[in-house]
Amino acid sequence: MSPLADKLAPDRGDGEGALPHRRYPTLLDSLLLVPARRALRQLLDAIGRPPLAFVLWNGQEVTATDAPVARVVFHDSATLTEVAANPFYAFGEAYADGRVDVEGDLAKLLTVTFQHTRAWQKKGANVLQTAARILQPRRNTLAASRENIHHHYDIGNDFYRLWLDEALVYTCAYFAQSSMTLEQAQRAKMDHICRKLRLLPGQSVIEAGCGWGAMALHMARHYGVNVRAFNISHEQITYARSRSREEGLDDQVEFIEDDWRNICGQCDSFVSVGMLEHVGLENYRLLGDVIDRCLTDDGCGLIHSIGRNRPDALNPWIEQRIFPGAYPPAMSEITNVLEPHRLSILDVENLRLHYAQTLRYWLRRYEDSIDQVHRMFDDSFARSWRLYLAGSIAAFESGDLQLFQILFTREANNDIPWTRAELYAEP
Amino acid sequence: MSPLADKLAPDRGDGEGALPHRRYPTLLDSLLLVPARRALRQLLDAIGRPPLAFVLWNGQEVTATDAPVARVVFHDSATLTEVAANPFYAFGEAYADGRVDVEGDLAKLLTVTFQHTRAWQKKGANVLQTAARILQPRRNTLAASRENIHHHYDIGNDFYRLWLDEALVYTCAYFAQSSMTLEQAQRAKMDHICRKLRLLPGQSVIEAGCGWGAMALHMARHYGVNVRAFNISHEQITYARSRSREEGLDDQVEFIEDDWRNICGQCDSFVSVGMLEHVGLENYRLLGDVIDRCLTDDGCGLIHSIGRNRPDALNPWIEQRIFPGAYPPAMSEITNVLEPHRLSILDVENLRLHYAQTLRYWLRRYEDSIDQVHRMFDDSFARSWRLYLAGSIAAFESGDLQLFQILFTREANNDIPWTRAELYAEP
Repeated sequence: MSPLADKLAPDRGDGEGALPHRRYPTLLDSLLLVPARRALRQLLDAIGRPPLAFVLWNGQEVTATDAPVARVVFHDSATLTEVAANPFYAFGEAYADGRVDVEGDLAKLLTVTFQHTRAWQKKGANVLQTAARILQPRRNTLAASRENIHHHYDIGNDFYRLWLDEALVYTCAYFAQSSMTLEQAQRAKMDHICRKLRLLPGQSVIEAGCGWGAMALHMARHYGVNVRAFNISHEQITYARSRSREEGLDDQVEFIEDDWRNICGQCDSFVSVGMLEHVGLENYRLLGDVIDRCLTDDGCGLIHSIGRNRPDALNPWIEQRIFPGAYPPAMSEITNVLEPHRLSILDVENLRLHYAQTLRYWLRRYEDSIDQVHRMFDDSFARSWRLYLAGSIAAFESGDLQLFQILFTREANNDIPWTRAELYAEP
Repeated sequence: MSPLADKLAPDRGDGEGALPHRRYPTLLDSLLLVPARRALRQLLDAIGRPPLAFVLWNGQEVTATDAPVARVVFHDSATLTEVAANPFYAFGEAYADGRVDVEGDLAKLLTVTFQHTRAWQKKGANVLQTAARILQPRRNTLAASRENIHHHYDIGNDFYRLWLDEALVYTCAYFAQSSMTLEQAQRAKMDHICRKLRLLPGQSVIEAGCGWGAMALHMARHYGVNVRAFNISHEQITYARSRSREEGLDDQVEFIEDDWRNICGQCDSFVSVGMLEHVGLENYRLLGDVIDRCLTDDGCGLIHSIGRNRPDALNPWIEQRIFPGAYPPAMSEITNVLEPHRLSILDVENLRLHYAQTLRYWLRRYEDSIDQVHRMFDDSFARSWRLYLAGSIAAFESGDLQLFQILFTREANNDIPWTRAELYAEP
């Protein structure tokens, strides 16, 4: 578990509203009001006057617009200095601690900020983030992967049940029609993948990183395939097995608590939804080896992963606080999985706006359940997860993060669809 | 022009049937019959007994099957030795010279050969081809590009008119329905691209590498856009301008005889069909710079290019004889165009089987016009182009070559289609 993870550890029934890290203004803070105001005004001008406002510790507002989408409230000057010095990390810490508050729409605030600081981000971020990666390279070894995944996914199924859909699908949904509910869109995503893979009854599927089992169960239930689904999260696998028993799908679906590196056996389809982000760049070649040794001669595979437009580190606060070891790859990096082997990319689809939409559902449900979150965890945890969900909306909305579905097959396989029209025909 | 290009230069009205390079069997050839037969039998066994046959200079057949798709006839032992030593280059030379003949289906012969020698190809080919690239790096500088393009595309419009469709579209067609004719499929390809780009009347389009102008004229005619289309082939540009005048599209389409490096001005859409193969890896970054400086903030672009599943050189005979300077890139290489800039991959579609189908039409028409080809060029040229077309069918059919359409947009552009369903809806 990461050094900072203790702060995020479940602290059930305690800490509601307690903000032990909140600082209160001192005489120094009063003296710093004028330069702070001036600096923030200059900042707003420099990044093109985005529709947001800052509120200083005396209640004074600094803005360049009449209608800010949100207000960032700094309760002391030290926090403002910290955030200015290292925005990509310190803002998250300060927000989690309650040393910064946001009034208004947090996701919109972050979207606007990402959009207006893009050019500036890229310059500063690369240096800071590269340094961070060199200093703290989290290797996704077998043992480290277990810790990283445990940190995020074993927080407790009850927590995720508060704000995910009924089947606990914790990946980007597919809103085939914009009117779809989250539940419908998650089913549509699973169908979209199954149809891309053209699953047929009796075929064998290996799923790498199966979450709470929704996809494996969906494939077995609706497409009649036999699935072996791998995951190293104990809580998730336990849940998936019990659902499989309840549904009587035990003879079709085997949930295996093991690392993707230990996957063996043959399959007609290899599917991995939301795992590549956790595999670690240094293991892409190995993941390709696993796919290569499993896939039959006319087999297909699909990787569904958060991605980027170019190689860049994950926001360091998210990586430390929320997703240790995570890294959204650029397409040039994803190709390292496939190109060493006799595999051929058939189709790549970018669904980033669907992830923004999915996250909006999750954040709304999270806010609706915030009292229950507070009964389960401390305030810092509750604020951190709000920031993570809102920040993720902003990242997908502003084009900072992508969602790639990559369909591939054996390079000699000519039994491939002539066009993609079937995907869009009525089922 | 390349050192070997003279051999391929137009030699109108001459050389029909003349094969000055054909060798005739000697006493040595007779002595070598037994070891040649043994070696070829071993070869057939080693590569899994493909359905093909060899015929030696005394008429004796060596095969491992009852129904060979084709027979490779060697007229002398020296040619067999040359081809065995350097199959990727020497077979092409020997076929062009008439020192090797093929009875039966040339494309099927090559497909079967590619499929059966895949593992073996990769080992030998990489060493040979890497060496070839190091020894003879063809740079696609401004001047070299002009020479390379002149070599292939300025052979004469009359020649291409013999076997291309009526609009002279010399890139992969899109058989939206498998019953389509070549003409329909070329129009469907242009529509497929225009619909991916969601062209609207009045928008501006830059086309890099416009061939004989079919795509530029199609976009102007059917989508009401204004196109500036670039090409360095003098014959193609001249033809395109005259077609534009005939159709009265002069005010919408400007054909510019210039290199893609000199493209300037803004556009809503950037489109390039079949040019990336000729740009040269070392210029991908520069091509990205050109796209970046042209594309508006919500602009889209599409690159349509032959590609590979992994970095690998083009067959050296094709590169020398047919396409100097050409290189089909892997996806990891194509990303070098886009990733340095604020561009986002939206959609990648692999249409390799459509290129095999397109080439089958071209080869059939080529054979139907072979008498006219012979009146225009010498026999070596005619055989070289037959081999090139048949070999290309085999390369796409066997999965050695891919055809990628890559749709991209500005990374901050959220005015992107929610799904791809519109592409497959009735127009």
